[in-house]
Amino acid sequence: MVGAVLVLSGPSGAGKSTIISEASADIGEYYFSISTTTRLPREGEVHGKDYYFVSKEEFEEGIKSGTFLEYAKVHDNYYGTSLEPVHDALSLGKLVIFDIDIQGHRLVRAKLGDITTSAFITPPTLIELETRLRNRLSDNEEVIQRRLENAKSEILAVGEYDFAIINDHISRAAREFSIVANAARLKHSQIDEATFIKNWLASE
Amino acid sequence: MVGAVLVLSGPSGAGKSTIISEASADIGEYYFSISTTTRLPREGEVHGKDYYFVSKEEFEEGIKSGTFLEYAKVHDNYYGTSLEPVHDALSLGKLVIFDIDIQGHRLVRAKLGDITTSAFITPPTLIELETRLRNRLSDNEEVIQRRLENAKSEILAVGEYDFAIINDHISRAAREFSIVANAARLKHSQIDEATFIKNWLASE
Repeated sequence: MVGAVLVLSGPSGAGKSTIISEASADIGEYYFSISTTTRLPREGEVHGKDYYFVSKEEFEEGIKSGTFLEYAKVHDNYYGTSLEPVHDALSLGKLVIFDIDIQGHRLVRAKLGDITTSAFITPPTLIELETRLRNRLSDNEEVIQRRLENAKSEILAVGEYDFAIINDHISRAAREFSIVANAARLKHSQIDEATFIKNWLASE
Repeated sequence: MVGAVLVLSGPSGAGKSTIISEASADIGEYYFSISTTTRLPREGEVHGKDYYFVSKEEFEEGIKSGTFLEYAKVHDNYYGTSLEPVHDALSLGKLVIFDIDIQGHRLVRAKLGDITTSAFITPPTLIELETRLRNRLSDNEEVIQRRLENAKSEILAVGEYDFAIINDHISRAAREFSIVANAARLKHSQIDEATFIKNWLASE
């Protein structure tokens, strides 16, 4: 049994976690992939829930021993996805949801393309993104500017995704997300085509 | 405004029309593309509902004047899809559903790939297809054998489709179909990417 993969990308401030939480009753069981990072935890962040927080040395050891499905270095910190829990969840036939950036999406698609669906989630405009980032009061000016610069370059990759979800109304965005997640789950039936055809044609 | 396309293929006897009808409350408004054919109407078939029935001369005139989105000749009869009603429905932003064969799917995908989603709908096995064809008592032995031969070659194309829907339980198949149809509808947001990015980045 093989599960399916749903990659979500989009600027910080797009509302990805709110959307997932609003839609969770409609999308059935899933495994949310937790990234590993070398950056320090922010206030309130929990090891094993928000991220796996590890040292630079541990991360680089992981790179060398091939434990990452994908990883990248952003502003001097590593971010990556460990292969093992993803592999375990897929073996159980689960839908695995990734919240990763556009580089991560490319790597996951390259490795797991057959079972991958992807969605880019974004506020309706850059201006609206800036408003949301300022309203949440959690980032200083430098961080806000960096997020806006990142968003300006990430939006150019929207065409690489199967779906774009514009988060202007949370209820509509959550409804669209649940459609995408349920469609992603159906993709697992596509794989192992040769066996499917053989069984379909079998006379007994 | 541009709509989206959903192509359905699969053997006669797969239950496509039952599935669409079961799911229709969940998939919103759509335009079901009516094919044009030169074959004679069967008992109960209505011109403009089941097919547009035309003469061989009319059909060949249509081919020459480029009015078909796709067409094929099967067992001496032409089958095709007129471009104009599809174009009109797409201009209104509608989801257009096609029930066409694997050749038709290839042609539609080649022409409208950006906005096309496709699903192959099939009974669980060839044996089960044969049982269903015999139970419906509408075809003679020769027609049943021809449908089974067609099904054996069409199943080999299942991998060309975005989704496979196995119609073993009608309620589950209808639920899967509604997920696929709603996902297909979301695809229209993917197109005209350049305009989307330009508007997203615009400072006012």
